[in-house]
Amino acid sequence: MDAAVERAVRRLEKKTGMPIQKALGLSGAKPTLTIHCARPGKLVQSVSEDESYRLTVTGEQATLSAPTPLGVLHGLETLLQLVEPAQGGFAFPTVTVDDHPRFAWRGMLIDASRHFMPVEVIHRNLDGMAAVKMNVLHWHLSDDQGFRVESKLLPKLTMDGSDGKFYTQAQVREVIEYAHARGIRVVPEFDVPGHTSSWLVGYPKLATDARELKIGRNFGVFDPCMDPSNEGVYLFLDQFIGEMARLFPDEYFHIGGDEVNGKQWSASEKIQAFEKAHKMPEGKEGNAAIHAYFNGKLLAILKKHGKKMEGWDEILNPDLPKDILIQSWRGQKSLAEAARQGFTGILSSGYYLDHMDKAATHYAIDPMAKESAELTEEQKKLILGGESCMWAEYVTPENIDGRIWPRNAAIAERFWSPATVTDAADMYRRLEAVSRDLEIAGVLHRANYRMMVERLAGNGPAGPVKTLADVVESSNLGVRHHAHDYSTGEALNRLPDTAIPESDAARKFAGLAARTSEPAARAEMRQCLMLWRDNDIKLQPVIAHSPLLADAQPVSETLARVAAIGLEALDAIEAGKKLDAKWAAQAKTRLTAAARPVDEVRIAIVPAIQMLAEAATK
Amino acid sequence: MDAAVERAVRRLEKKTGMPIQKALGLSGAKPTLTIHCARPGKLVQSVSEDESYRLTVTGEQATLSAPTPLGVLHGLETLLQLVEPAQGGFAFPTVTVDDHPRFAWRGMLIDASRHFMPVEVIHRNLDGMAAVKMNVLHWHLSDDQGFRVESKLLPKLTMDGSDGKFYTQAQVREVIEYAHARGIRVVPEFDVPGHTSSWLVGYPKLATDARELKIGRNFGVFDPCMDPSNEGVYLFLDQFIGEMARLFPDEYFHIGGDEVNGKQWSASEKIQAFEKAHKMPEGKEGNAAIHAYFNGKLLAILKKHGKKMEGWDEILNPDLPKDILIQSWRGQKSLAEAARQGFTGILSSGYYLDHMDKAATHYAIDPMAKESAELTEEQKKLILGGESCMWAEYVTPENIDGRIWPRNAAIAERFWSPATVTDAADMYRRLEAVSRDLEIAGVLHRANYRMMVERLAGNGPAGPVKTLADVVESSNLGVRHHAHDYSTGEALNRLPDTAIPESDAARKFAGLAARTSEPAARAEMRQCLMLWRDNDIKLQPVIAHSPLLADAQPVSETLARVAAIGLEALDAIEAGKKLDAKWAAQAKTRLTAAARPVDEVRIAIVPAIQMLAEAATK
Repeated sequence: MDAAVERAVRRLEKKTGMPIQKALGLSGAKPTLTIHCARPGKLVQSVSEDESYRLTVTGEQATLSAPTPLGVLHGLETLLQLVEPAQGGFAFPTVTVDDHPRFAWRGMLIDASRHFMPVEVIHRNLDGMAAVKMNVLHWHLSDDQGFRVESKLLPKLTMDGSDGKFYTQAQVREVIEYAHARGIRVVPEFDVPGHTSSWLVGYPKLATDARELKIGRNFGVFDPCMDPSNEGVYLFLDQFIGEMARLFPDEYFHIGGDEVNGKQWSASEKIQAFEKAHKMPEGKEGNAAIHAYFNGKLLAILKKHGKKMEGWDEILNPDLPKDILIQSWRGQKSLAEAARQGFTGILSSGYYLDHMDKAATHYAIDPMAKESAELTEEQKKLILGGESCMWAEYVTPENIDGRIWPRNAAIAERFWSPATVTDAADMYRRLEAVSRDLEIAGVLHRANYRMMVERLAGNGPAGPVKTLADVVESSNLGVRHHAHDYSTGEALNRLPDTAIPESDAARKFAGLAARTSEPAARAEMRQCLMLWRDNDIKLQPVIAHSPLLADAQPVSETLARVAAIGLEALDAIEAGKKLDAKWAAQAKTRLTAAARPVDEVRIAIVPAIQMLAEAATK
Repeated sequence: MDAAVERAVRRLEKKTGMPIQKALGLSGAKPTLTIHCARPGKLVQSVSEDESYRLTVTGEQATLSAPTPLGVLHGLETLLQLVEPAQGGFAFPTVTVDDHPRFAWRGMLIDASRHFMPVEVIHRNLDGMAAVKMNVLHWHLSDDQGFRVESKLLPKLTMDGSDGKFYTQAQVREVIEYAHARGIRVVPEFDVPGHTSSWLVGYPKLATDARELKIGRNFGVFDPCMDPSNEGVYLFLDQFIGEMARLFPDEYFHIGGDEVNGKQWSASEKIQAFEKAHKMPEGKEGNAAIHAYFNGKLLAILKKHGKKMEGWDEILNPDLPKDILIQSWRGQKSLAEAARQGFTGILSSGYYLDHMDKAATHYAIDPMAKESAELTEEQKKLILGGESCMWAEYVTPENIDGRIWPRNAAIAERFWSPATVTDAADMYRRLEAVSRDLEIAGVLHRANYRMMVERLAGNGPAGPVKTLADVVESSNLGVRHHAHDYSTGEALNRLPDTAIPESDAARKFAGLAARTSEPAARAEMRQCLMLWRDNDIKLQPVIAHSPLLADAQPVSETLARVAAIGLEALDAIEAGKKLDAKWAAQAKTRLTAAARPVDEVRIAIVPAIQMLAEAATK
């Protein structure tokens, strides 16, 4: 707690620009913060700890009381959020906050396999998570594209499977300690039996098909898979999980289990014979059965090493004991189904940050809604919370902060606050402030965006590049997959890598377009549209000298065209005239084309311009 | 050198956004960088080492050769500067660079006493210095306002004299190692016998007058001073310097010696009697004589501990041996005088970063110019180089980067490049690129400026605050001294603390104003002037809700008025009309008033507007 107070003081200094004199135990006439904590924290943070706190600020005194240090950590974050400009500088408002989380499991997955994320990336995102009171880092540590943790017993996992990019065990301990100090549990995921190309390169004997094994360089679902009929696989996993169980203290251990396409199992005579011998059904159901068999063996290994099993939807099987945790990427239906069968679960479907959805979209998803709403009270208790997911196919240490933040704060609020808090406009208002606070906490979502924009500009002026980047949004994984067959070694330094998932400028413009009847809104719209229409002329010479921007040319041209349509519509609206059917048809065609992704980005103002065009013609 | 190569690869990745595969010793068909270094570096870097290098880039191969690791470090910096956008991404130009520094001593002083600068501030500024090939950190570690280094023998120095803000010896070693790895020497300064309030609080027996001793809270020249007639002072200094001589490996040791006002010496019967007994002259000259006596004793102590003495102008005395180094803050005349007497020297006058001068002003100062130009060749050899000085009365860990950079890069070039390189316009062109590269090297001059601007905006939009801040320049120490009696505990978070010393926007506008005959320049000027004129209206509501901005109101109003005058002048110029004498007189009065500092900033576009106004009337 001393360290937490020290960090809070440093952030308060940064937020206010005022030197704060911290004197622990100081009592005198001056306003002080008194912290009461009823009992010490657990050495290993558990899922069921009390995270509540009570914060009172009066004119003389601030008091923060909590049953555990976790509550104190959360209360300090709230206190920092409350600092507001006030006469003479800054002040805390007089307030009483009684607060506790709605869900016990409020997590985020970071994929460190598709692109390796150095320790400092994890650290600063842990700071961001702590600022929004998330409490689980789900660390996706192995996949086809790379095995990322040093094993001392099985060194070929990283020697052959990581391209030299992995966490040492000392670094893992450092991250766990850093997270623990911020009230965050670290749950490792080692995905088996699929997603294991990187394991199998060094240990081909584990493979169903040992031919042509290599680290995955591209993205998608791969065929290589462990051989569940091979007893050696379980000896290996016993050894590996034993070592990792000692390294990661959390009670949960995530074994993945997703996206086994079964091709190699179906093609393997040995496995088909094994399935037959074990009276498993034929075909796809046989693969499901042997996967369940694998999970059963795996569960015994996890139990032996004192861990609870966590896995993706696919591991769900009525034969497994009820204390395993199902992470649903498929949707609320599958989550509810798990709960009905008596399994604990968390929701990730709807919280995939790589889908490039809006904060409001994520915010509207609730783990307890839809099929889950029909569960009994007892069943509902099995839904522990949720996790956002930052898959890293198109994500680098540079742009990961901007992919996660500030949108992830909206998800964090969904997991913490009452289900009734759903006003998206108010969420965006607060998200803006949170985004600034996150920067103070050390997250680089805005700094790295600026840096990448300036790099795109080469030696030219960054202004027109920023104007373009500000109104486009990066396309999702699916679009990017189809646009180009990316590999892990490729540079991610173009416009789609720079652009953030949700354009603030476009959202604000849409807000203006909804108030077209107001002259002030129209004037502001006109300024924006002129800026966007005229930007292409300014950007052309920059593009000519910056190869990184070459692909952005059609995007810039399309933006100019779209803005020009918007100006024509606005002119008509201001003049009280209606544009004719020919104009309407042409505008519609052009805007429909502009709504499609160009160079793996979407022009985010198109829907608002479509609204304007309709208003000018109907 | 391995670490330097590793750092260079990381920065190359940051500059290009491309993953760079480093394989030491790799030889194959691919382009490679080969580094030849003739001999190992010295354990303790000396003033006279060969820092030259030769860099050759062909279509197939880059080769960097240097006699010492220092040359390799400098060559790597040049290589990083050379990376340019090119077809397909980035490229090094084919080039041959034969390079060596003009001066052996290329330093910067950082004052860590007036405001304490944590280790990370020193580290990132060492990275900046290395990027511009500076090679001496002059670390100003004690002054009236704080004693900043742990002494194990004399613990009251920091216990009573630092407010708990000081470097541990481990941190000092860390900084020295960090600097050494970047080819930078660390010369500590412990300023005696004046500027010593912070020493005397814990050790009042050293004082000339032991009454009312306290850590300095304000700024200026203080009276408290050590007592040169007290033999105990020399025993103390012997102990202290012995300890520090072991901690700081550099051959030089800076003892300050400046600004002894002598008030307490003149008032002390004991010292007057001592002066008389030693046949020293009376009055001010007596004080000079006893100061020289003090320096003589100090020199013996430094010699005993293996150090060469360095001090400010004031220590210059013909009786001292010739191997002491004079740092001139008074000017080239005093530097030349020292050289004539046979002393080595460096120039700091003209390089005071806290004077808030333009980069071009510093760039035009040359250690070898003016009086130094008249020296003999032998005397000229005694001028080793120069040092920029970052005094920290109005400087915090937050704004120090923006106070130092990018201007310091122009000074660094003065110290490195031939005297004939003096084109200011070309310097500014390159300074822009260097400024971006410095950000990649880890300097926070631009990031912290943005952060401070956003803080000024409170919860309002930062845009209008940035528009204002971009065209004002922070006033120098003198103006700030007179505006308000600042203390060290005060927050430095207002507009004058945020504004940088030299406005890019104003410099670019002045460039346009010089090309008023060109329509394109006039159009661009009009855009700027409208932005500035209309900014006040946008800023008013932000000011109303942000107390930190309260004092900026008159600045914003003045900017609007100045811009309006500029627009009137521009209208007349475009219309080919001349404005009348009444207008001219009124404009002159208003612009003269606007040229004066408002709220400790100056509005940097005023001189260009004055030009426009004159062009419109004559």
